[in-house]
Amino acid sequence: MTTFDVLTIGNAIVDIIARCDDAFLSSNGIIKSAMNLIDAERAELLYSRMGPAVEASGGSAGNTAAGVASLGGRAAYFGKVSNDQLGAIFDHDIKAQGVHFATRPLDGVPPTARSMIFVTPDGERSMNTYLGACVELGPEDVEPDVVAAAKVTYFEGYLWDPPRAKDAIRDAARIAHANGREVAMTLSDSFCVHRYREEFLDLMRSGTVDIVFANRSELLALYETEDFEAALGRIAGDCRLAAVTMSEDGSIVVRGADRVPVDAIPVARVVDTTGAGDLYAAGFLFGYTSGRSLADCGRLGSLAAGIVIEQIGPRPMQSLKDAARAAGLL
Amino acid sequence: MTTFDVLTIGNAIVDIIARCDDAFLSSNGIIKSAMNLIDAERAELLYSRMGPAVEASGGSAGNTAAGVASLGGRAAYFGKVSNDQLGAIFDHDIKAQGVHFATRPLDGVPPTARSMIFVTPDGERSMNTYLGACVELGPEDVEPDVVAAAKVTYFEGYLWDPPRAKDAIRDAARIAHANGREVAMTLSDSFCVHRYREEFLDLMRSGTVDIVFANRSELLALYETEDFEAALGRIAGDCRLAAVTMSEDGSIVVRGADRVPVDAIPVARVVDTTGAGDLYAAGFLFGYTSGRSLADCGRLGSLAAGIVIEQIGPRPMQSLKDAARAAGLL
Repeated sequence: MTTFDVLTIGNAIVDIIARCDDAFLSSNGIIKSAMNLIDAERAELLYSRMGPAVEASGGSAGNTAAGVASLGGRAAYFGKVSNDQLGAIFDHDIKAQGVHFATRPLDGVPPTARSMIFVTPDGERSMNTYLGACVELGPEDVEPDVVAAAKVTYFEGYLWDPPRAKDAIRDAARIAHANGREVAMTLSDSFCVHRYREEFLDLMRSGTVDIVFANRSELLALYETEDFEAALGRIAGDCRLAAVTMSEDGSIVVRGADRVPVDAIPVARVVDTTGAGDLYAAGFLFGYTSGRSLADCGRLGSLAAGIVIEQIGPRPMQSLKDAARAAGLL
Repeated sequence: MTTFDVLTIGNAIVDIIARCDDAFLSSNGIIKSAMNLIDAERAELLYSRMGPAVEASGGSAGNTAAGVASLGGRAAYFGKVSNDQLGAIFDHDIKAQGVHFATRPLDGVPPTARSMIFVTPDGERSMNTYLGACVELGPEDVEPDVVAAAKVTYFEGYLWDPPRAKDAIRDAARIAHANGREVAMTLSDSFCVHRYREEFLDLMRSGTVDIVFANRSELLALYETEDFEAALGRIAGDCRLAAVTMSEDGSIVVRGADRVPVDAIPVARVVDTTGAGDLYAAGFLFGYTSGRSLADCGRLGSLAAGIVIEQIGPRPMQSLKDAARAAGLL
């Protein structure tokens, strides 16, 4: 059995990406910078109003797995697509990146999930996700030998939206811990935190999750506070390790009383922030599972995030391994 | 009935785009910079060897229609997709650009055409096209009122590959001329010219086609010569108007004894040449149908081509109208 550095589990989504102005967001009731969940009918409506677009495989945890593999790590992914053209695209892209992916697809209904991502002139992305086939991800999709073989199993908070994925996560976490492995999660989105705050806190406090990734607004939402320092103190008590991203202000890694500040990398122009948090997690977890210092884990995260926001689309089109070498991080 | 500036007719294709090195092309028998026609079996094989990709609506004449619309022109398109997810993407993108598109789709078999486009570090694109639904385009897809209402009907030489599209073209040309309109074509690809040289020459000499677009290698292939000047002289005798592109050397517009040289625009970096010829034709035809001088038609072509090669994907992601205004061409 291969050993994996990182297994990620998430909603398997193909992104449909177009530019728009801020007025489009407000006139269509889209919450800026958030992940807006939509049904099939609203998906039709928004697509009819969307400008010409491009498509790319996405999904938060899928992007993270692709990032780990691009850095040279051994990655695996669980996520549910359907047996349709978008599913074939998702399947191709993650495997072509070298990620183990064998989740059984649905037979076409519901179709593969897609997220319509509107990118405003400031580079911010506002997502509108139709979950499609993702609603069928369940415990039967957990490959126990892959979980057992992965140093870290990482999942999205977004998985609390579909009905049965949370059961898969609890099973996977149990298998991981029984094999001496670690479990990580991302809080995903501040609105997602509002929907599932108590459950996320319980995952941390029960020891189901060891490592937590969050951005500033997600962390504040988790503890229902505006006091960032206080929130950092509280998450230090609720999980063993946390990495909190702060956009251009870099990130801070929190372990007990230790706090490791990490700079962001200089970015020529923010083209599209899609995937920034996912790629930060990829860099961090690649560093973590290869035994690097927390500061270097954070630097690898900053590098990967900085690269993905300089392009359109959620997965870097260049080799992160080459970029990390050029930056002296590998 | 709306008047259209330009109607384009072509193979309706979704592009699947990935980077590769030159060794990949040679080891997979892909002719560099060409359009390689492939069957379903080879499409499977090449896709299994392709790296992670992104998708975008393409098709030569589809790109041209999108370019005309992006410049503010009134454009229409005939092309055959299937009723599947890639077909829905193609349909969305061209309509979202404001192009009239109403060709009846197939019921899923064969599927919508796709072209696997490999982009080498020099920015050159090598295409591998599975024609899928395009093989069913035929005379029944010609909308006579749209042809009659279009100042120029433009089609791809590529349409000689599927079996019945050429019949549609002959019908459309007849309707166009009966209504006092003009007909234009692109020679598409030097290998395509080798396949259909006599038919292409007959289209020109019979007066079926009034205006011809070609690049240097296509023009040389047409007349089976290495003498560019001689070839320019010959095409001047075979059609009323020709525009011949020469990459970074710009283009030359030929009408009888008149030759109008046009500069290329400065390009910061050639990212992906996909769509360069298509967008040159878009700029030229937009200028032509709005009564501009041949020099300005060529300049509009250079501008649109220069913009599309600075990005990944075959259709400009920015407004060409804004770019042309900024360049003082509108």
